[in-house]
Amino acid sequence: MGEALDRGRDFLQSIDPELEKILGERYDELVPEFSESLVETIYGRVYSRPGLDIKTRLISTIAALTAQGAQTSPQLRINIKNALNVGVTKQEICEVIFQMSLYGGMPAMINALNTAKDVFAELGD
Amino acid sequence: MGEALDRGRDFLQSIDPELEKILGERYDELVPEFSESLVETIYGRVYSRPGLDIKTRLISTIAALTAQGAQTSPQLRINIKNALNVGVTKQEICEVIFQMSLYGGMPAMINALNTAKDVFAELGD
Amino acid sequence: MGEALDRGRDFLQSIDPELEKILGERYDELVPEFSESLVETIYGRVYSRPGLDIKTRLISTIAALTAQGAQTSPQLRINIKNALNVGVTKQEICEVIFQMSLYGGMPAMINALNTAKDVFAELGD
Amino acid sequence: MGEALDRGRDFLQSIDPELEKILGERYDELVPEFSESLVETIYGRVYSRPGLDIKTRLISTIAALTAQGAQTSPQLRINIKNALNVGVTKQEICEVIFQMSLYGGMPAMINALNTAKDVFAELGD
Amino acid sequence: MGEALDRGRDFLQSIDPELEKILGERYDELVPEFSESLVETIYGRVYSRPGLDIKTRLISTIAALTAQGAQTSPQLRINIKNALNVGVTKQEICEVIFQMSLYGGMPAMINALNTAKDVFAELGD
Amino acid sequence: MGEALDRGRDFLQSIDPELEKILGERYDELVPEFSESLVETIYGRVYSRPGLDIKTRLISTIAALTAQGAQTSPQLRINIKNALNVGVTKQEICEVIFQMSLYGGMPAMINALNTAKDVFAELGD
Repeated sequence: MGEALDRGRDFLQSIDPELEKILGERYDELVPEFSESLVETIYGRVYSRPGLDIKTRLISTIAALTAQGAQTSPQLRINIKNALNVGVTKQEICEVIFQMSLYGGMPAMINALNTAKDVFAELGD
Repeated sequence: MGEALDRGRDFLQSIDPELEKILGERYDELVPEFSESLVETIYGRVYSRPGLDIKTRLISTIAALTAQGAQTSPQLRINIKNALNVGVTKQEICEVIFQMSLYGGMPAMINALNTAKDVFAELGD
Repeated sequence: MGEALDRGRDFLQSIDPELEKILGERYDELVPEFSESLVETIYGRVYSRPGLDIKTRLISTIAALTAQGAQTSPQLRINIKNALNVGVTKQEICEVIFQMSLYGGMPAMINALNTAKDVFAELGD
Repeated sequence: MGEALDRGRDFLQSIDPELEKILGERYDELVPEFSESLVETIYGRVYSRPGLDIKTRLISTIAALTAQGAQTSPQLRINIKNALNVGVTKQEICEVIFQMSLYGGMPAMINALNTAKDVFAELGD
Repeated sequence: MGEALDRGRDFLQSIDPELEKILGERYDELVPEFSESLVETIYGRVYSRPGLDIKTRLISTIAALTAQGAQTSPQLRINIKNALNVGVTKQEICEVIFQMSLYGGMPAMINALNTAKDVFAELGD
Repeated sequence: MGEALDRGRDFLQSIDPELEKILGERYDELVPEFSESLVETIYGRVYSRPGLDIKTRLISTIAALTAQGAQTSPQLRINIKNALNVGVTKQEICEVIFQMSLYGGMPAMINALNTAKDVFAELGD
């Protein structure tokens, strides 16, 4: 088993220990080794790297998904939840989304802000 | 003169006091009030807002421009320089660009990393 | 209060006098001054400018939103309604959407045409 | 009647003989000659061309729509069905979608894989 | 020879009578019938349609190309020249580009404005 | 050392045995393990997978890069060369690029065709 895969699994232990299993049940039949690949690439090769703290990494991902527009809203939801879980504030999330009006345009910003509003409401805030 | 325009001008004093003049000389003839509009909208209405520190704001902008691809490389250059000026490290810049391979794809990430490499080389690093 | 903000508010009086209030109720708690910012930037700094008539401005916005794809369909709906309100014809709207097949591709064009069809149906045409 | 239009109609005979009529009923009132235009441009001018087999053409379209993100999911559905009809395997479809994680990013890939999963389920697989 | 192809050729007579020949010399060897296809699809099936005047069509194309970002700058140049040729003013071109900051973001708008500036300079303005 | 990394290195032996070294010299100082990560993710986790032949994989990548527009032209060049190396014909490459006019629009298609023309010319065709 590869080092990056190990690192990815270790990283997920503290964040979302069921994720590899859930991905596997949904996708491994269609795409063999799908769950293992994503754990290795996303968590072992990117999010577990040193040099940028996890809060800034998640804020940056929210920025990018906002600028890419509403088509990534399922992933935006997940990253907003993950960001809240590691201590990013609702204000920081809303501010970075608002800032993206300058780069992704007004519609992308408003659509992302609606997604954030929905996530906050679901979480009882 | 509006409050947001004032805030934008104040904000630029400490960062890039010549910017409004430079924009004005380049674009105000074609688009009347261009420079004033951008100072107000970009700096008065976004970057001077509280709730998200300037380093995280610039890292987020670098994330978004990377994910949008090489077409924004002139703006990516400027934001990388601005980020270095406020104390973001080269490592943080490279890490956030690398992370964007997951959202903007490998080509967008490599093109942005080449831009960062060029900026670092110009600045004598 | 700034001039651009005043211009934006004046412009909205004749088009959609409740918009600032509606935006404020939905978003100002999450993003302080959100409604004021958008009125200033969108209406005070862009749509109220001289040099391009409002009908052509709205047709151009419909063109851009079509080319950007279905992710901006909530904003496309609003701009189609606004365009009809200022006298743009259904034919002009459909023609500019169809033209966008050359720039945004066939799927983007068809998705936008479906949105237009829905808006026309809602309005009883 | 033009040659390309004839070629498009001939091509559709073996694939989807009702398509021109369906498009005409939905769109020709809004955009006169819409159905004829699309048959000519899409089928007469592109898919009926020699030099690239139809299976590879459809796999390539699935690749492009995946990389463009979830906003084209209605068209992705249709192209997945068409690909299955001409003998592209489910495995080939899933593989090309997975490959697109490198170019369109992880969210685009996952959204397209969900669409494929839905289509396969509908078709009773 | 098809009707749409005829319409496209007629349309080009008054605008750019050499275009089909130029496209043919550049591309027909690689893509047989390339020039004929583009004349038919772009000019016979879109720009020659009634229902939207040519000035508004070209302004809309400039809007869409601006919002799509700097990657389409060769096409933006051509459409700016064509727009000037049919009587669109420099002011109208600059205004629609500026408006696109709301939909394509600030970098896309600035890059397009630079392209317009270059075209105007070349034409001796 | 991980299995996917091994697979990626094996795969590259027959295609481009110097690539990991070249990537390492250019990028590993800025992004530690950059070259290893890309070999693992791109070649170990994607291109070496069974279920889709390498010619179709490369044609699909050319399709996606074309549809994403000229910003990915450096990567398009590489993939066109790689495709020729594994036996994809120039005609197949030109056909899939032309087909993308339907999904990425005319400008994206023309820009990609120009890139292909340049690559063919360089290679002495």
